[in-house]
Amino acid sequence: MRAASREQGRTPAHPEIGDVPLQQVLEALVDPVRRGILRELYDSGEDRACGTFDLTVSKSTATHHFNVLREAGLITQRYVGTSRMNTLCRKEVDAAFPGLLDAVLGRGEA
Amino acid sequence: MRAASREQGRTPAHPEIGDVPLQQVLEALVDPVRRGILRELYDSGEDRACGTFDLTVSKSTATHHFNVLREAGLITQRYVGTSRMNTLCRKEVDAAFPGLLDAVLGRGEA
Repeated sequence: MRAASREQGRTPAHPEIGDVPLQQVLEALVDPVRRGILRELYDSGEDRACGTFDLTVSKSTATHHFNVLREAGLITQRYVGTSRMNTLCRKEVDAAFPGLLDAVLGRGEA
Repeated sequence: MRAASREQGRTPAHPEIGDVPLQQVLEALVDPVRRGILRELYDSGEDRACGTFDLTVSKSTATHHFNVLREAGLITQRYVGTSRMNTLCRKEVDAAFPGLLDAVLGRGEA
Protein backbone atom coordinates (compact mmCIF):
# COMPACT_ATOMS: atom_id res chain seq x y z
CA MET A 1 0.00 0.00 0.00
CA ARG A 2 2.79 2.36 0.86
CA ALA A 3 4.56 1.36 -2.35
CA ALA A 4 1.42 2.00 -4.39
CA SER A 5 0.86 5.47 -2.99
CA ARG A 6 4.53 6.32 -3.40
CA GLU A 7 4.24 5.18 -7.02
CA GLN A 8 1.20 7.40 -7.48
CA GLY A 9 3.02 10.38 -6.02
CA ARG A 10 5.71 10.00 -8.64
CA THR A 11 3.29 9.86 -11.56
CA PRO A 12 3.20 13.26 -13.26
CA ALA A 13 0.03 14.90 -14.56
CA HIS A 14 -1.27 13.55 -17.87
CA PRO A 15 -3.70 15.83 -19.71
CA GLU A 16 -5.72 14.18 -22.44
CA ILE A 17 -4.83 15.53 -25.84
CA GLY A 18 -8.49 16.30 -26.56
CA ASP A 19 -8.31 18.88 -23.76
CA VAL A 20 -5.03 20.41 -24.95
CA PRO A 21 -5.21 23.55 -27.15
CA LEU A 22 -4.06 23.00 -30.73
CA GLN A 23 -1.47 25.76 -30.21
CA GLN A 24 0.20 23.75 -27.44
CA VAL A 25 0.21 20.56 -29.51
CA LEU A 26 1.82 22.35 -32.46
CA GLU A 27 4.41 24.02 -30.22
CA ALA A 28 5.32 20.56 -28.93
CA LEU A 29 5.65 19.23 -32.49
CA VAL A 30 7.66 22.14 -33.91
CA ASP A 31 10.82 21.20 -32.02
CA PRO A 32 13.01 18.71 -33.92
CA VAL A 33 14.34 17.04 -30.76
CA ARG A 34 10.78 16.40 -29.60
CA ARG A 35 9.82 15.06 -33.03
CA GLY A 36 12.87 12.79 -32.79
CA ILE A 37 11.54 11.35 -29.52
CA LEU A 38 8.08 10.85 -31.03
CA ARG A 39 9.57 9.28 -34.14
CA GLU A 40 11.52 6.69 -32.14
CA LEU A 41 8.30 5.73 -30.33
CA TYR A 42 6.28 5.81 -33.57
CA ASP A 43 8.78 3.72 -35.55
CA SER A 44 9.42 1.12 -32.85
CA GLY A 45 5.80 0.84 -31.74
CA GLU A 46 7.12 0.09 -28.26
CA ASP A 47 7.39 1.86 -24.94
CA ARG A 48 10.85 3.23 -24.28
CA ALA A 49 12.73 4.35 -21.19
CA CYS A 50 14.00 7.95 -21.32
CA GLY A 51 17.62 6.83 -21.27
CA THR A 52 17.30 4.68 -24.41
CA PHE A 53 16.60 7.52 -26.86
CA ASP A 54 19.26 8.68 -29.26
CA LEU A 55 19.38 12.33 -28.14
CA THR A 56 22.13 14.90 -28.54
CA VAL A 57 20.96 17.13 -25.70
CA SER A 58 21.81 17.12 -21.98
CA LYS A 59 19.81 14.99 -19.59
CA SER A 60 18.01 18.01 -18.11
CA THR A 61 17.13 19.35 -21.57
CA ALA A 62 15.86 15.91 -22.53
CA THR A 63 13.70 15.85 -19.38
CA HIS A 64 12.24 19.22 -20.41
CA HIS A 65 11.38 17.88 -23.88
CA PHE A 66 9.71 14.76 -22.42
CA ASN A 67 7.70 17.01 -20.09
CA VAL A 68 6.52 19.21 -22.98
CA LEU A 69 5.40 16.13 -24.91
CA ARG A 70 3.58 14.74 -21.88
CA GLU A 71 1.89 18.08 -21.08
CA ALA A 72 0.67 18.27 -24.70
CA GLY A 73 -0.96 14.85 -24.34
CA LEU A 74 1.36 13.28 -26.92
CA ILE A 75 3.03 10.76 -24.60
CA THR A 76 2.35 9.20 -21.23
CA GLN A 77 5.07 8.41 -18.72
CA ARG A 78 5.21 5.89 -15.92
CA TYR A 79 7.89 4.60 -13.62
CA VAL A 80 9.13 1.04 -13.95
CA GLY A 81 11.62 0.67 -11.12
CA THR A 82 13.91 3.67 -11.54
CA SER A 83 13.25 4.06 -15.27
CA ARG A 84 10.67 6.44 -16.68
CA MET A 85 8.91 4.63 -19.50
CA ASN A 86 7.37 6.62 -22.36
CA THR A 87 4.35 5.60 -24.41
CA LEU A 88 3.14 7.36 -27.54
CA CYS A 89 -0.58 8.24 -27.19
CA ARG A 90 -1.17 7.04 -30.70
CA LYS A 91 -4.86 6.17 -30.36
CA GLU A 92 -5.72 9.34 -28.44
CA VAL A 93 -3.81 11.64 -30.83
CA ASP A 94 -5.36 9.93 -33.86
CA ALA A 95 -8.82 10.44 -32.33
CA ALA A 96 -8.28 14.13 -31.50
CA PHE A 97 -6.28 15.05 -34.64
CA PRO A 98 -6.85 12.39 -37.29
CA GLY A 99 -3.87 12.14 -39.61
CA LEU A 100 -1.60 14.49 -37.65
CA LEU A 101 0.92 11.94 -36.38
CA ASP A 102 1.18 10.15 -39.70
CA ALA A 103 1.60 13.48 -41.53
CA VAL A 104 4.30 14.74 -39.18
CA LEU A 105 6.14 11.47 -38.50
CA GLY A 106 5.30 9.37 -41.53
CA ARG A 107 7.51 11.13 -44.06
CA GLY A 108 10.68 9.73 -42.47
CA GLU A 109 12.04 13.23 -42.02
CA ALA A 110 13.37 14.68 -38.78
CA MET B 1 4.71 41.40 -73.82
CA ARG B 2 5.90 44.19 -71.61
CA ALA B 3 2.82 43.69 -69.43
CA ALA B 4 3.51 39.97 -69.24
CA SER B 5 7.11 40.39 -68.18
CA ARG B 6 6.17 43.07 -65.68
CA GLU B 7 3.59 40.65 -64.28
CA GLN B 8 6.22 37.95 -64.07
CA GLY B 9 8.59 40.30 -62.26
CA ARG B 10 5.96 40.86 -59.59
CA THR B 11 5.27 37.15 -59.07
CA PRO B 12 7.17 36.01 -55.98
CA ALA B 13 8.96 32.65 -55.74
CA HIS B 14 6.72 29.66 -55.06
CA PRO B 15 8.51 26.59 -53.71
CA GLU B 16 6.58 23.34 -53.94
CA ILE B 17 5.70 21.99 -50.53
CA GLY B 18 7.24 18.63 -51.38
CA ASP B 19 10.60 20.44 -51.54
CA VAL B 20 10.10 22.33 -48.28
CA PRO B 21 11.59 20.84 -45.08
CA LEU B 22 9.02 19.61 -42.57
CA GLN B 23 10.58 21.96 -39.99
CA GLN B 24 9.72 24.98 -42.15
CA VAL B 25 6.16 23.78 -42.74
CA LEU B 26 5.58 23.27 -39.00
CA GLU B 27 7.10 26.68 -38.19
CA ALA B 28 4.62 28.22 -40.64
CA LEU B 29 1.73 26.36 -39.01
CA VAL B 30 2.66 27.09 -35.39
CA ASP B 31 1.70 30.76 -35.63
CA PRO B 32 -1.99 31.39 -34.85
CA VAL B 33 -2.27 34.37 -37.22
CA ARG B 34 -0.97 32.23 -40.07
CA ARG B 35 -3.34 29.41 -39.15
CA GLY B 36 -6.14 32.01 -39.20
CA ILE B 37 -5.23 32.92 -42.78
CA LEU B 38 -5.14 29.26 -43.81
CA ARG B 39 -8.41 28.58 -42.02
CA GLU B 40 -10.21 31.36 -43.92
CA LEU B 41 -8.96 29.89 -47.21
CA TYR B 42 -9.75 26.33 -46.07
CA ASP B 43 -13.28 27.17 -44.86
CA SER B 44 -14.28 29.33 -47.83
CA GLY B 45 -12.68 27.10 -50.47
CA GLU B 46 -12.06 30.25 -52.51
CA ASP B 47 -9.12 32.44 -53.43
CA ARG B 48 -8.93 35.59 -51.34
CA ALA B 49 -7.21 38.95 -51.71
CA CYS B 50 -4.83 39.85 -48.85
CA GLY B 51 -7.00 42.78 -47.81
CA THR B 52 -10.11 40.66 -47.26
CA PHE B 53 -8.79 38.61 -44.34
CA ASP B 54 -9.96 39.27 -40.83
CA LEU B 55 -6.54 40.00 -39.29
CA THR B 56 -5.67 41.94 -36.16
CA VAL B 57 -2.09 42.69 -37.19
CA SER B 58 -0.59 45.61 -39.14
CA LYS B 59 -0.42 45.46 -42.92
CA SER B 60 3.35 44.89 -42.91
CA THR B 61 3.05 42.10 -40.33
CA ALA B 62 0.28 40.54 -42.40
CA THR B 63 2.53 40.69 -45.49
CA HIS B 64 5.24 38.88 -43.52
CA HIS B 65 2.79 36.13 -42.53
CA PHE B 66 1.60 35.69 -46.14
CA ASN B 67 5.25 35.45 -47.23
CA VAL B 68 6.01 32.76 -44.64
CA LEU B 69 3.01 30.73 -45.82
CA ARG B 70 4.02 31.11 -49.47
CA GLU B 71 7.67 30.19 -48.78
CA ALA B 72 6.49 27.06 -46.95
CA GLY B 73 4.52 25.99 -50.02
CA LEU B 74 1.18 26.31 -48.21
CA ILE B 75 -0.29 29.07 -50.40
CA THR B 76 0.33 30.58 -53.80
CA GLN B 77 -0.05 34.27 -54.55
CA ARG B 78 -0.75 36.09 -57.79
CA TYR B 79 -1.62 39.63 -58.73
CA VAL B 80 -5.07 40.43 -60.06
CA GLY B 81 -4.88 44.12 -60.86
CA THR B 82 -3.48 45.68 -57.70
CA SER B 83 -4.74 42.90 -55.40
CA ARG B 84 -2.62 39.98 -54.32
CA MET B 85 -4.81 36.90 -54.46
CA ASN B 86 -4.07 33.94 -52.21
CA THR B 87 -4.80 30.30 -52.97
CA LEU B 88 -4.48 27.43 -50.51
CA CYS B 89 -2.30 24.66 -52.00
CA ARG B 90 -4.73 22.07 -50.77
CA LYS B 91 -3.97 19.35 -53.28
CA GLU B 92 -0.20 19.79 -53.01
CA VAL B 93 -0.20 19.85 -49.21
CA ASP B 94 -2.47 16.82 -49.05
CA ALA B 95 -0.12 14.95 -51.40
CA ALA B 96 3.04 15.86 -49.45
CA PHE B 97 1.55 15.56 -45.94
CA PRO B 98 -1.66 13.53 -46.13
CA GLY B 99 -4.04 14.53 -43.37
CA LEU B 100 -2.01 17.50 -42.09
CA LEU B 101 -4.33 20.31 -43.21
CA ASP B 102 -7.45 18.54 -42.03
CA ALA B 103 -5.83 17.74 -38.69
CA VAL B 104 -4.63 21.31 -38.11
CA LEU B 105 -7.58 23.21 -39.61
CA GLY B 106 -10.43 20.73 -39.35
CA ARG B 107 -11.05 20.96 -35.62
CA GLY B 108 -12.51 24.45 -35.92
CA GLU B 109 -9.96 25.79 -33.46
CA ALA B 110 -7.68 28.77 -33.99
